[in-house]
Amino acid sequence: MTLFRGLSAFPLTPLDEAGEVDEAMLGCFLDRIVAAGADSIGLLGSTGGYAYLTREQRQRTLRVAVERVGGRVPIVVGVGALTTAEAVALARDARSAGADGLLLAPMSYLPLTDEEVFRHFVAVTEAGELPLCIYDNPGTTKFAFTVDLVARLAELPNVAAVKLPLPADGDHAGELARLRARTPDSFAVGYSGDWGAADALLAGCDAWYSVVAGLLPATALALTRAAIQDDFAEMRRLDDAFRPLWDLFRTYGSFRVMYAVADVLGFAGIAPPRPVLPLPSAELGRVAAAVRQIDRANAQDEGSTDGDEHPAG
Amino acid sequence: MTLFRGLSAFPLTPLDEAGEVDEAMLGCFLDRIVAAGADSIGLLGSTGGYAYLTREQRQRTLRVAVERVGGRVPIVVGVGALTTAEAVALARDARSAGADGLLLAPMSYLPLTDEEVFRHFVAVTEAGELPLCIYDNPGTTKFAFTVDLVARLAELPNVAAVKLPLPADGDHAGELARLRARTPDSFAVGYSGDWGAADALLAGCDAWYSVVAGLLPATALALTRAAIQDDFAEMRRLDDAFRPLWDLFRTYGSFRVMYAVADVLGFAGIAPPRPVLPLPSAELGRVAAAVRQIDRANAQDEGSTDGDEHPAG
Repeated sequence: MTLFRGLSAFPLTPLDEAGEVDEAMLGCFLDRIVAAGADSIGLLGSTGGYAYLTREQRQRTLRVAVERVGGRVPIVVGVGALTTAEAVALARDARSAGADGLLLAPMSYLPLTDEEVFRHFVAVTEAGELPLCIYDNPGTTKFAFTVDLVARLAELPNVAAVKLPLPADGDHAGELARLRARTPDSFAVGYSGDWGAADALLAGCDAWYSVVAGLLPATALALTRAAIQDDFAEMRRLDDAFRPLWDLFRTYGSFRVMYAVADVLGFAGIAPPRPVLPLPSAELGRVAAAVRQIDRANAQDEGSTDGDEHPAG
Repeated sequence: MTLFRGLSAFPLTPLDEAGEVDEAMLGCFLDRIVAAGADSIGLLGSTGGYAYLTREQRQRTLRVAVERVGGRVPIVVGVGALTTAEAVALARDARSAGADGLLLAPMSYLPLTDEEVFRHFVAVTEAGELPLCIYDNPGTTKFAFTVDLVARLAELPNVAAVKLPLPADGDHAGELARLRARTPDSFAVGYSGDWGAADALLAGCDAWYSVVAGLLPATALALTRAAIQDDFAEMRRLDDAFRPLWDLFRTYGSFRVMYAVADVLGFAGIAPPRPVLPLPSAELGRVAAAVRQIDRANAQDEGSTDGDEHPAG
């Protein structure tokens, strides 16, 4: 199962000016990911803005994606919500629409206890009946998973993976060892946080849940493959090429930056859902330069037959 | 204007087993608050679970409240939402339903910048056209206001007050002085965090945004009046009586505890919206004892003609 292994690409969910899902543009984003050969699509993740969308918008996004992708790449879909009732409904929606797996972040308003999160996951996995990835993203959910809780959840039917934030101490290997010791062999451990992906892959994690791969999947895939094949030189070369973009991610948050990347790539007219604001326009040149540098690195990549296409430029 | 001064009582929003607003029980909660003579009602605050309710549930709650209260006590209503579009819609709903003021917490998924929060508030105040209280609640919103941002917001038409969490250093007087120096004389500064209310009132804040007053308004009001009249002995006596409940608030969070208080008072059959779980049933005895102690203290209060009525016990 590649569902929670290798490169998972997280596309934006483009909305038009009326706030409706821009199906044509979403289709383009998905085509790029499928063409590059990513291992899975992380639809309606944090990058897909799931937290800002209605149930109807999320249903529509998934329907469009399932049709467009046509089974060529598995689709994992975010079903997080502030209430268990809503997350359960979204998990049922995902299953009936044909998703391959679920991503569940414990969104919170009131800070949640471990027991509350555990029971929330039980309800959603029972309703979803699909392989599920625990989405540990304390910067947005205010909830941080302990190894104990991940181990307890990993015993549930269908809980197949965890997506972790980069470890604060940078010790991926240590964290992986602690989790591997407490979870079944089939349980997959992956990381988000694009600027730490190379180190995480080198340390032996199973998956890179990648924001940048939502729009620049070919280069992200080249980096993933180089790391998995222990081609250190190539991996470092590609990671270095991404560095100016990683710097922008750290300054502005990857969500805001990816809207600017879309603009640079010619996908015009979309903006983050307010209150989130787009990048200052003065930074667009920096974003464009960062994207050019990534493209150049990818063009030099012998293993790549073609880079990420630019629809307008 | 008493809207953002004195005691503001924050009721729970009771839902029945089908998830519908229990209008009869909500009416009882509001009757208690009106009968006690609270200065305002903080409807659909964090205690009212606004973050877990749909727009329709929030509309219905406000409609019931406006009708039941009939203008006897001003109603301030929470209009926070994860998107600006939703918060703007809720602010318009509030105005057309007859609310007296708005409470706006900058709910977030992606952490927000000061500029994003500022523009969010501009949009909501323009749509709401009602006096608005900035709802600073970083434990739930992940956003902490600076004095600079409060001062900037206080210049907007209709931004009339701020509701602060208890200061980490316990220095209410210092914080009040810093805010008073940067905001208009008419701008009201109040506090949440019931266990620090006595100190906050003594330090000269304008309002206590009170969770406990949602169900035990008479005793909360007695404490407020004692503090405002500098009756230290009476204030300390009442605050001491509340202490076992404050301890429960700090251990379990006031939201969960208030559902148990409702149960103790005979308002049966309601529970926090999941994933939030009710208190362990083993703690109900402790809650009952805490409520009895508060009742006894209130019965001894010479200034009070009657305490908080118990519908069933």
